[in-house]
Amino acid sequence: MNLNQLSCQIEVKRMHVLITGVAGFVGVNLAKTLLGMGSRVCGVDNLSRGCIENMSDLLSDPMFSFKELDLCETDKLLQACKDFQATESITEVWHLAANSDILAGIEDASVDLRDTFMSTHSVIEVMKLLGIKYLAFSSSSAVYGDHGINALCEDTSSLLPISNYGAMKLASEAAISAAVESHFNQAWIFRFPNVVGVPATHGVIFDFVRKLQLNPGELRVLGDGSQKKSYLHVDELVEGMLFLRLHATEKRAIYNIGAADEGVTVKFIAEQTVDALGLTADIKFGEGNKGWVGDVPRFVYSTDKLKKVGWCPKLNSSQAVKKAITQVIEQESRK
Amino acid sequence: MNLNQLSCQIEVKRMHVLITGVAGFVGVNLAKTLLGMGSRVCGVDNLSRGCIENMSDLLSDPMFSFKELDLCETDKLLQACKDFQATESITEVWHLAANSDILAGIEDASVDLRDTFMSTHSVIEVMKLLGIKYLAFSSSSAVYGDHGINALCEDTSSLLPISNYGAMKLASEAAISAAVESHFNQAWIFRFPNVVGVPATHGVIFDFVRKLQLNPGELRVLGDGSQKKSYLHVDELVEGMLFLRLHATEKRAIYNIGAADEGVTVKFIAEQTVDALGLTADIKFGEGNKGWVGDVPRFVYSTDKLKKVGWCPKLNSSQAVKKAITQVIEQESRK
Repeated sequence: MNLNQLSCQIEVKRMHVLITGVAGFVGVNLAKTLLGMGSRVCGVDNLSRGCIENMSDLLSDPMFSFKELDLCETDKLLQACKDFQATESITEVWHLAANSDILAGIEDASVDLRDTFMSTHSVIEVMKLLGIKYLAFSSSSAVYGDHGINALCEDTSSLLPISNYGAMKLASEAAISAAVESHFNQAWIFRFPNVVGVPATHGVIFDFVRKLQLNPGELRVLGDGSQKKSYLHVDELVEGMLFLRLHATEKRAIYNIGAADEGVTVKFIAEQTVDALGLTADIKFGEGNKGWVGDVPRFVYSTDKLKKVGWCPKLNSSQAVKKAITQVIEQESRK
Repeated sequence: MNLNQLSCQIEVKRMHVLITGVAGFVGVNLAKTLLGMGSRVCGVDNLSRGCIENMSDLLSDPMFSFKELDLCETDKLLQACKDFQATESITEVWHLAANSDILAGIEDASVDLRDTFMSTHSVIEVMKLLGIKYLAFSSSSAVYGDHGINALCEDTSSLLPISNYGAMKLASEAAISAAVESHFNQAWIFRFPNVVGVPATHGVIFDFVRKLQLNPGELRVLGDGSQKKSYLHVDELVEGMLFLRLHATEKRAIYNIGAADEGVTVKFIAEQTVDALGLTADIKFGEGNKGWVGDVPRFVYSTDKLKKVGWCPKLNSSQAVKKAITQVIEQESRK
């Protein structure tokens, strides 16, 4: 099933979707896709990472509304939603807002507490007050912790996150699970792998391109480069999420979304980035197989549950990374 | 191994233990046992549920210090710990403080957010600042959610709590798991079943005794009485936790603690309470097998992991309940 087919189904549903973190990497792409399908979209963002420039296309669309606010200010979120509902009731929320600087969250636990978890608490509260009964949530592979070479399935047991980011994503999942019992009809919890593409605001490719622009002769990499992970392109992520939104019927629909391969190494990404920039930079690796405390050095993602519902990405991790490198270089060259 | 044998091992370790929620049901019993073993104990409590009267024996012990404070006020907790450390460094924290009114937490999610989760966040922050590297935590069977008649094991997959209490206990486990990666040496996470005994401040037996004192002719029960759960006496809980504290060696030691049986029904507890009070009250049941939204109607607890380490309780659920009924009646008759 492609986006056009999904589009027909979504139009029938007449959705009015609130996206939190709408100015961020995934938010912008999701909003564009939903608008393209004929949905009404409203969005909020505190613009701490996301930026207005990312939304220039969106802001000119009469079916799109935006309010700058911090989700932790529950009263302001409630008022914004009431304003958005002046035209049409919000039918569902896609809660994508979170801290995306995982290292900052390891240094200071209050970062993920606030931006990754309290934001979720606030969204749930406002949905309860307004009677909105459907929630889609961007969770993360980080909820699993470090399971080495064992493939991570949705029912992998012992969820032992090793970063505050992963911990606060798991805390959010838990709060959503309880809300499903008492006042939601359904929640979709998508566990993301590493997602790449544009508009990039963070992540390994973005970091490498920026570093090489500053110093074209040398690229310093965190860790020994052997970290091997699964990557998904944001275009496919959006398609996969919308597919699950329409076809996953469990009240608590928890799904890994990712490529069905063993992933690529950080060394591969470094080499591909240097190559795509036409440089001959000296790549200098650090020590150990973790980029930082709380980094999961290797994970293999099971996407069997996703496949059973009927969707899988067309690009593997290597293809997704290469496509994103080209896009990020182009994005940064325009600045 | 009995408490005397445990005592020798603990004395050798020269522990100075901070207990949060020390005036509560489990806190008072743990503090007494640790003091009896020769440890120094300091404790904090906001006295919202726990009370000073519960601690009358403790307060006369020169090896015990107490400070009334709310854990969410991190600065006050930090200062209290610094004061406690004037004599001797705190070697470990037993974090027992939490909301114990599960229904209140379902009505208003901010109750468990604050008392069950933010309290944990605060404790972790203070431990990080003071370099305290060992944490024991009272988690709950509620982290599992409703798995019907399947026995709940520590590695049962899909942790889907159905109450905010369970959600915020799981959120606390997640935050502790991340802290073990970055700054703790070891954490013990005890997943409690229903715990009974004195000094009772809440719970099914306490409620039944109070109701029957007010109205000896009738006892109204939430739900149809068929809810069947595992019960553990607090004396045995304390022994089991201390045993695991000394013998469970994993960095993240997660253990169910409970009786190795299928539990007893709420109907059984109601009948036993009426009988122990020498009444002939009419027991009136409600409808449905859930006492309230978020109640797990039936759970069977696997204690195989606990047994493998070498401990199991002497009382089964029925014996634990009967012992507690006698104790709670005696407690309430003194008022």
